[in-house]
Parts: sequence; structure tokens; C-alpha cells
Amino acid sequence: MNFPIFPEKAIRSFTESVFIKMGCSEEHAVLAADVLLASDLRGIDSHGVARLSGYVRLWEKQRINTSPNIRVVHETATTATVDGDRGLGLVVAPFAMKLAIEKARQYGSGWVSVRNSNHFGIAGYHATEAVKYDMIGFAMTNASPLVAPTFTTERLLGTNPMCYAFPAGKHAPVVVDMATAAAANGKLEIAQRAGKAIPEGWVQTKTGESTSDAHALKTGGSLLTLGSDREHGSHKGFGLSATVDILSAVLSGANYGPWVPPFVAFLDPLPDLPGEGIGHFVGAMRVDGFRPVDEFKSHLDNWIERFKSAKPIDPEQPVVIPGEPEFEAEKERKLNGIPLDESVVKDLKELARRFGIEGL
Amino acid sequence: MNFPIFPEKAIRSFTESVFIKMGCSEEHAVLAADVLLASDLRGIDSHGVARLSGYVRLWEKQRINTSPNIRVVHETATTATVDGDRGLGLVVAPFAMKLAIEKARQYGSGWVSVRNSNHFGIAGYHATEAVKYDMIGFAMTNASPLVAPTFTTERLLGTNPMCYAFPAGKHAPVVVDMATAAAANGKLEIAQRAGKAIPEGWVQTKTGESTSDAHALKTGGSLLTLGSDREHGSHKGFGLSATVDILSAVLSGANYGPWVPPFVAFLDPLPDLPGEGIGHFVGAMRVDGFRPVDEFKSHLDNWIERFKSAKPIDPEQPVVIPGEPEFEAEKERKLNGIPLDESVVKDLKELARRFGIEGL
Repeated sequence: MNFPIFPEKAIRSFTESVFIKMGCSEEHAVLAADVLLASDLRGIDSHGVARLSGYVRLWEKQRINTSPNIRVVHETATTATVDGDRGLGLVVAPFAMKLAIEKARQYGSGWVSVRNSNHFGIAGYHATEAVKYDMIGFAMTNASPLVAPTFTTERLLGTNPMCYAFPAGKHAPVVVDMATAAAANGKLEIAQRAGKAIPEGWVQTKTGESTSDAHALKTGGSLLTLGSDREHGSHKGFGLSATVDILSAVLSGANYGPWVPPFVAFLDPLPDLPGEGIGHFVGAMRVDGFRPVDEFKSHLDNWIERFKSAKPIDPEQPVVIPGEPEFEAEKERKLNGIPLDESVVKDLKELARRFGIEGL
Repeated sequence: MNFPIFPEKAIRSFTESVFIKMGCSEEHAVLAADVLLASDLRGIDSHGVARLSGYVRLWEKQRINTSPNIRVVHETATTATVDGDRGLGLVVAPFAMKLAIEKARQYGSGWVSVRNSNHFGIAGYHATEAVKYDMIGFAMTNASPLVAPTFTTERLLGTNPMCYAFPAGKHAPVVVDMATAAAANGKLEIAQRAGKAIPEGWVQTKTGESTSDAHALKTGGSLLTLGSDREHGSHKGFGLSATVDILSAVLSGANYGPWVPPFVAFLDPLPDLPGEGIGHFVGAMRVDGFRPVDEFKSHLDNWIERFKSAKPIDPEQPVVIPGEPEFEAEKERKLNGIPLDESVVKDLKELARRFGIEGL
């Protein structure tokens, strides 16, 4: 594979143009592009512009509304439910997070459940927004069903990520941003392209046997939850994924479980949906609602330093603080540009042609 | 092994007597016993009266204060930090949860971080308190370091459980209550007593190799985080455990990481502690802060029914809804009594002798 490198600015401005061609306002286009670019900058290549054509296909199917009336439909001092009006999750989730932060500013904490939305990019983008205001950020979302709970072969859950973000002092924020499946679908795709086997414990066949076949999802298999099997705690991964599904969708009125509409446009949503669109849940808590910010940050720095300096098993591989690799990637890619997979470049060229805009 | 069965009432009244002999007020003794009994009733035998003698030994070492001045030291409308004054976590955590529920009643949500506490029993007890008021409950705690983060051999984390509890309608509440380690220490103890090997992926040796030796913890080994190894997502288990540690202790001013004081009284806390005691984090959110309670409950019932009826891999083993086995155990044990391991019965007899009270 070949990875040509493009400057951040070029990818950003191209992405904004695509969103504007889809009918987004200038403000929404800039914001949506910012969320996708954050993913590419942080090295999470699967969730950035690699997905741009996927959003376009959903829009073509009229499953994304690019001029949504995003609104609060239920509210207390510190909680709210937002209806995303079928908008891009890339703009709906920032609306919800802004509301959570505003509530936290006033009352110490703020929590927003979101329905009738679409995929929101990386959870880490939304949670780290709170960190800018010396708050602790939370973000989660449900997603298209690909994952089977423990003991069944049915795909009832998405990879349902959850993210917690904490502001540090000298160091980068601690950002725990993780799918609740054992491995994300992106890892299977890499193995498929390379013609390689995958480790057992990521996927099961349609009859529920563990397999190393990277193509097993295409023949009725399913991803496994974090923990992989019952003996190693797959019921815990199921519990975490269930928590994401309930907070994001049962609480907001979005679709949950097997009814979450698929991200791929060639699959139609199921009939008789119990809710609207997909769901998110975001929150913010002021650090100084608990102790002075400086105290918290200096102890979190101490925490980071103690864990980073732990005795490594392999001297070449120290302990990795959650969020640190993404922070390092962002510094490097802002400077040197973003490598894009050739298949992604081809995708973006097709988008340029389709919308009659200048390509990368 | 032999498991004599005792009525709930007998164990409860014995446990209350022990706490009173330790100097607890009547109110605190009743509450602390209720937390331990909830664990035994729900079938989580490791965290109930099996630990009573452990609490006694900590008290004998003057590491538990049985007449604590539990107080709020920092507060906003929806957040607070509580100092447990070295009290039993079994009474400190309910104090914090009550405060969180009261804040949620007034403002929609409430969040309390706790320092200077001791072990609080099962997280599920505290989180399900909120469910009684049609709220979603959260509870987590850090714990004595036994778990090594990915890539190190050092024990820097406890089994750090997290719990989320949701009120359902027709069905039992959904309660996700899980250690963030691949397997809890209790499972090792069962294998040790039976002289059996454990599955690889639960424990590593002191040089960082996976092992099936159930005694490996005693020779410098460590528990592994949920996910077991990097390939299967152990960094996610580490991230979850880190989240528990930061919310419970870095936020409150308790000890974190390797400095969390050991539960076993024969090990002294490390010198130069960065905080006070161990830490918890609890919270509550009103369901009707997001949507009407009836709507939420009927959709959660629908969620439960859909997951429970999923096609099983083994027809004898349907999908298990988080919290369901504990709920079933509670119904059964309230009726028929609680089986106690003979070693636990022996322990309790010694306590009866030590305090000059009537045994079970």
C-alpha cells in the first residue's frame, strides 16, 4: 500500500467544500470538517475523511438532513434531550456538548442525550471539548449492529464507543476513547486487504464459533464484545455496550439494539423502528465542582508520571497513557501532513468529480 | 466443600452485632450490614460477610474509624466532594449516594466524589439506590493495587469496579456491575482451593508472561485488565480502570494508583501518600430529566425482551441481561437462606468468640 501525504489545510478545505455542496451551512460545513479532520490528525484514520463518501451516500439516500432544526425537546437545570432532526452527527453532537458545557458552567454538571442523529465521528472530539474549559468530558454513541452479546449469534449492538476526557497540567489530557467491542471493524478491513488471518477472539462465525477468518463478518458472523469470551469477561464488554445503548437511545428516544440504522447506505433501516435515528450521550462536569483545578491537575500529572515510569515488560515499550498516542500524532501530522490510504484518495477524487469541485 | 445455609435474618443480625461491637452507631451498623447482606443475597459471595473479618482487622489496625464525621468539603449545585473521615466505605458511600440523589431531585443530576474512605462493598448496592427514585445510578471505587496496566509488570491499579443501574418497568433493573480486570481475585481463590489451573489471560507472572498458575499473584505476579492482552483490548480495560481511579481519587483527594491502601490489614500503606484513604465516585440522574419515566421504562422493557429472546448459541444458555442473575439469586436466597462457605462460617465463629456475642 502507498500512503501519499496531504497538508491538513488541503484536506480540511476540500472536506468543507463537500459538506457545502451537500447543502450544509458554512458554519456546519466548517464544524463537520473539523470533527473529521480531528480524527485524521489524531491518527484514527478509519473515522476521518475515509468516511466522507459514506456520509455523502447516506445524504443521497435522504437519511441525512443537511439543514436540520436541531432543538432541545426536554430539559432540567442539568439534563436535556436534543432532537437532531436527522442532521449529521458531526454537527448534532457538538450542539449537545455545547449545551452540556453551558449547564456545567452554571450548575456544576450537564448531561445531554440525543436522538434522531447520525454518526458523530470520534467520541474523543466531543469529550475533549469539555477539557478546554477545565471540565471532565464524557461522550458515547450507539452504532450500526455488528456485535453479538455473549451467548448469541445475533448482531444486536454497535461497536458503541465511550470516551472519558480529563484535563492535565504539564501533560496532554488523559483521553480514554474506546469501542466496547474486542476489536473495531477497521482492524478486520486491514487484515482483509493484507490477506491475513485475525487473532481468535475478535469475531465469531454465524454459528457462534471463534474464528481467525477476517472475512467472517461477510458470511453472517459477528464481532465480539470486549473480553472476547465469557471466561475472559465478554459479559463485561456486553454490559458496557448495553450502557452506551441505553444512555444514548433508550433515554433519548433514538433507535437501540438491532434497530440502529446501518451506516452503510446500501442497507435499509429495519421496519417498525422503536425510535428516531441513532443516539448519543454527552456530558461535562466542572473539575472545580470537586476540588481546585490546580490541585486536580497536579495530581493527574503525578498519576501520569507514575504510570508512564512503571517498569516495562519490554524495555522498548513503556506504558501508554490513554490519549497520548493521539496527542503525539496530532502534533506530528499538523506539522508534516496527513497520510491517506490510496483507496481513500480515490474516493475523494470521485467526490470531487461528483460535486464538480477541485480535488486534493 | 460444604455450604451450610443460614437464614438472611440470622446473618444480618449477627453482622449488625459485630459492627456495634466495633463501635458503630446502631444506624451505621444496620446500614453496613445491609450493604454486606445485599452482596450475599445477590450471590456475590466474595463481597459479603466473607469480608467481615477483613473489616475487623482493618479496624484493629486503626485504619477504620467507626465513629466518623462524614462531611461535605466542597460543593456546587450538582457536584460535591465528601470526606469519609476514615469511616467504613459501607456507610460513607451511602452518605455520598444520598447526597447525589438529593441533588438530582433538585437539579436533574448529582455527582459526588469521595476521599478518605474504605472499601464500600458491591458497587451495585450504591448504584441501585438511585433506581428506587426512578433515577439512573452510577457507582465506582478504586481498590488495593493488584492489576498491571498493559505493558508493565507493576501492580498499579485495583480491580476498580464500575456500575451503571437503570430502572425498568415489568422487568428487574438493568445493573451493569463489573470489575475492570479480566477476572476478580475471588475467581483465583476458588481455583486455588480446588487445586485447579486458571485460564490464560487472567494473570501474568512477575516477568510479564501469561500463566495458568492460580498462585501466580503470590509470587509477584499481577492480575490483567479486561481484554487480557494488547491484541484483545487490554488497553481498554486499562482505560476503564484509569477512569475509575481518576474520578474516585484524583478528583476527590484520595489515594490513587499504587498508593491505594491495601485491604488486607497485614500490609501497611506505602509511605508519602498523595491523598487520604481510598476513593469512590457516585452519581444519579433523573430519568424524567430526559423523557417521561413511563416511556423510558417501556422502551427498556422492550430492549430487555429483544436481547433475552436473541437466538442462543447453546439452546440451554440464553442471553443474560446484566443484573438479572443477581436479582434471581436475591429472590431465591431471601426465601431459602444464604449458603456460606465453611471457611467463612469458621471466620464468623471466631468473630463471635472475639466479641463475646452469640454465633450464627
